[in-house]
Amino acid sequence: MTQERRVSIEFKYISANHFRNQIMRTILMLLLSISCATVTAGETDSLVIRQLFDEALSSREAYENLRWLCKKTEGRISGTPEAAAAVEFTRQVMLDMDLDSVYLQELKVRRWIRGEEYARVTSSLYGTEALSITALGMSVGTGERGITGEVIEVHDFEELEALGSRSISGKIVFFNRPMAPTMINTFRAYGDAVDQRTKGASEAAKYGAIAAIIRSVTTAVDDHPHTGVMYYEEGVNKIPAACVSTVGANLLSAWLKGDPLLKVHLISTCMTKPDVTSYNVVGEIRGSEYPDEIITVGGHLDAWDNSEGAHDDGAGCIQSMEVLRLYKELGIQPKRTIRAVMFMDEEIEQRGGKKYAELAKQNNEKHYVALESDRGGFLPRGFGIDAQGERLERIIALKRYFKPYNISQFKRGGGGVDIGPLKQYGTVLISLIPEMQRYFDYHHSPLDTFEQVNIRELQMGSAAIAALLYLIDTYDL
Amino acid sequence: MTQERRVSIEFKYISANHFRNQIMRTILMLLLSISCATVTAGETDSLVIRQLFDEALSSREAYENLRWLCKKTEGRISGTPEAAAAVEFTRQVMLDMDLDSVYLQELKVRRWIRGEEYARVTSSLYGTEALSITALGMSVGTGERGITGEVIEVHDFEELEALGSRSISGKIVFFNRPMAPTMINTFRAYGDAVDQRTKGASEAAKYGAIAAIIRSVTTAVDDHPHTGVMYYEEGVNKIPAACVSTVGANLLSAWLKGDPLLKVHLISTCMTKPDVTSYNVVGEIRGSEYPDEIITVGGHLDAWDNSEGAHDDGAGCIQSMEVLRLYKELGIQPKRTIRAVMFMDEEIEQRGGKKYAELAKQNNEKHYVALESDRGGFLPRGFGIDAQGERLERIIALKRYFKPYNISQFKRGGGGVDIGPLKQYGTVLISLIPEMQRYFDYHHSPLDTFEQVNIRELQMGSAAIAALLYLIDTYDL
Repeated sequence: MTQERRVSIEFKYISANHFRNQIMRTILMLLLSISCATVTAGETDSLVIRQLFDEALSSREAYENLRWLCKKTEGRISGTPEAAAAVEFTRQVMLDMDLDSVYLQELKVRRWIRGEEYARVTSSLYGTEALSITALGMSVGTGERGITGEVIEVHDFEELEALGSRSISGKIVFFNRPMAPTMINTFRAYGDAVDQRTKGASEAAKYGAIAAIIRSVTTAVDDHPHTGVMYYEEGVNKIPAACVSTVGANLLSAWLKGDPLLKVHLISTCMTKPDVTSYNVVGEIRGSEYPDEIITVGGHLDAWDNSEGAHDDGAGCIQSMEVLRLYKELGIQPKRTIRAVMFMDEEIEQRGGKKYAELAKQNNEKHYVALESDRGGFLPRGFGIDAQGERLERIIALKRYFKPYNISQFKRGGGGVDIGPLKQYGTVLISLIPEMQRYFDYHHSPLDTFEQVNIRELQMGSAAIAALLYLIDTYDL
Repeated sequence: MTQERRVSIEFKYISANHFRNQIMRTILMLLLSISCATVTAGETDSLVIRQLFDEALSSREAYENLRWLCKKTEGRISGTPEAAAAVEFTRQVMLDMDLDSVYLQELKVRRWIRGEEYARVTSSLYGTEALSITALGMSVGTGERGITGEVIEVHDFEELEALGSRSISGKIVFFNRPMAPTMINTFRAYGDAVDQRTKGASEAAKYGAIAAIIRSVTTAVDDHPHTGVMYYEEGVNKIPAACVSTVGANLLSAWLKGDPLLKVHLISTCMTKPDVTSYNVVGEIRGSEYPDEIITVGGHLDAWDNSEGAHDDGAGCIQSMEVLRLYKELGIQPKRTIRAVMFMDEEIEQRGGKKYAELAKQNNEKHYVALESDRGGFLPRGFGIDAQGERLERIIALKRYFKPYNISQFKRGGGGVDIGPLKQYGTVLISLIPEMQRYFDYHHSPLDTFEQVNIRELQMGSAAIAALLYLIDTYDL
């Protein structure tokens, strides 16, 4: 039998759940409408949350949408045709959901294009070996003939300063400080190492370096470069910057110890072209009581060009749309308008997030709360909440509803790159906190594939977000 | 460069950690020996636990050993040459660890052998289609010519009884009750569905069925059969039993709705041969104060013949050995004897666990506490503890030490199939509770591969076990 026929049978099987859902919805509606003396508000809420989890865990729709996004729009960095396909796909998914409104927010994005890339290390002692490298986003290229130079290994900017121009001028600087494997909070470990990637080239250029090679910011030992954006400091010579796989970095470091005079030849023909038009994609369910108050739930649609962008951040987009689907499917009518937003251009200049906040101001919108899912489609463990005083305490107190789902980390401090600009309007910002041990193994590399997302973990994340926003809306928190 | 050369450079890089460890060990020894007024016992313990996690998260040794076990002894069900290789491998790993003692415990195991297997569904309406099936462990075969019959779909034993012999006699019974996707505790969902697999054949045979086909016990939708053991009821006709992939089950069920007269042709030439000799593998560090009191930490070495046995239970074996390595590496000397045990034959008759308990009695051993890791090498979330009264409360109170590692589920009730027989001696039984959403996606199928184990999650599990046993031993709990 062809795969298509099997899949069609799968879908028939799945749609059998639909009748069950009709019944569930009726029960739920009864519970929500009857003011029954024996069912307290808390118990009703617990039942609604149970329904959200049950529905999320019973449906393969979000997961299959993630498969499409990963497999059909792989490499959808801002400004690419793949990003345009992702815009149209998520727009169509939401058009098919019978929402109150689906629309695009136009913006201009950078158009940075990776070219040919290649690096080789040559040592009179050890011979010649290819290094797995890839240009950092927004880097300038080397030109077609490439750059050849001796290499100097450093671990931080202090070491760079101590060495000074005499040691560095004319050389390729190799930043090789590993992301610490011992930190349980891997996002903190990433934050401690990523300055080499974002600022390394300009720091090295100040001392006359001709290029920068940066160890991939991951604790994984693999031969894939993990890319990411870099920034040039105003007024400093722009030199090419590329990241090297951790396996390549270990090799280069080992060879350098034996042969400090080895040379690296680096070719990268990446370039930046004029800005192009792209979009945020928005779908919304209009609020029944306070339609002017907005609850935003979002992820970012763009993903690095060397990756399927499954965990970063296909998962967050899919979960945001799934929140709307869950409400529709279970007949939950929020009091406030709830919007799923697929932000464009998180990876380079966050222009989608900025545009969203700009339009919010222009349209005099009141942004009640915004939640971002951009830490991977892993098991949800809690939420980070950026709010103050009693409001913060009341949201943290919602934790009790999540005990049956083993979700217990309700912490002060949250937000996200795309919803961040809403903070100026007093919006409460929340980030989903998924389990974080695996995230950087895949991050910004060809390893971030659909297959690395577990359906149940993804589903539980969607349900957790839907449940939290339901409670916040219901209790006017 | 060849892969070997790259790996050798990896190892050079890793061994650079060794010097760091020497220093860490010295610091640790100082902390443990100095009775310093400013460092409380609790603070020292927190530092020891931090060191255990740091060392586990910095070493790739356990992970590389798991790779070997998975890739070189794939399909190591009891009685196979692969199981013998696994015995010798883990023995050698422990011999190289400079332990006080490494030895084998001899036992007899069943030798059940899978043969050719094949199933095809034929319908006058839909045509012919292969079904992905595999025999259940300990099933009888069909003979080389196979069995052909009409199929009757049931969902539980009540339905079977209601249908009775008139409907069932001469047919193949197809058990198709799915494992519930909505239960957060997937082990409970598994427990609710697995009776079809373990007892289905005998129950069906009571009504004259000629074979049983059982839906794989997993929530995953995949085309791999997930096998497992089955038992024949004494005095009931033994009929062949095979599991079918969930995709195959959905297909068969859909076809049956349209064509109740379709037939399945099933061939399975599996058979049981005379028992053979095998072993538990034991390594121990002798206790300094109470060498006669034993702390056991174990997993099972056998794995289903259709799988690499990575999560089930290569991970548990590797973690148990890693606990000893961590103690040796950090110079932690337990007061009681600590043993890592690789139990043989968990999957079929648990003869390894029974033999271990039998020898414990024979040798008059005092078994203080036993911990089993047999729920996959996923992120540790807590421990299940089978103890009473104050002892239970004091162990649960240790939870405070695990807060920095987000390990918080310390629950009453625990143990495991292999350590279970020690309960009769009053031993406190503990099970590691890893995150459980992904486990049954891989369980007992070709999907349970090394690649599905994340190094950091595995390492954190080892550290958590080592930390808990350290605290229990130190505080005589």
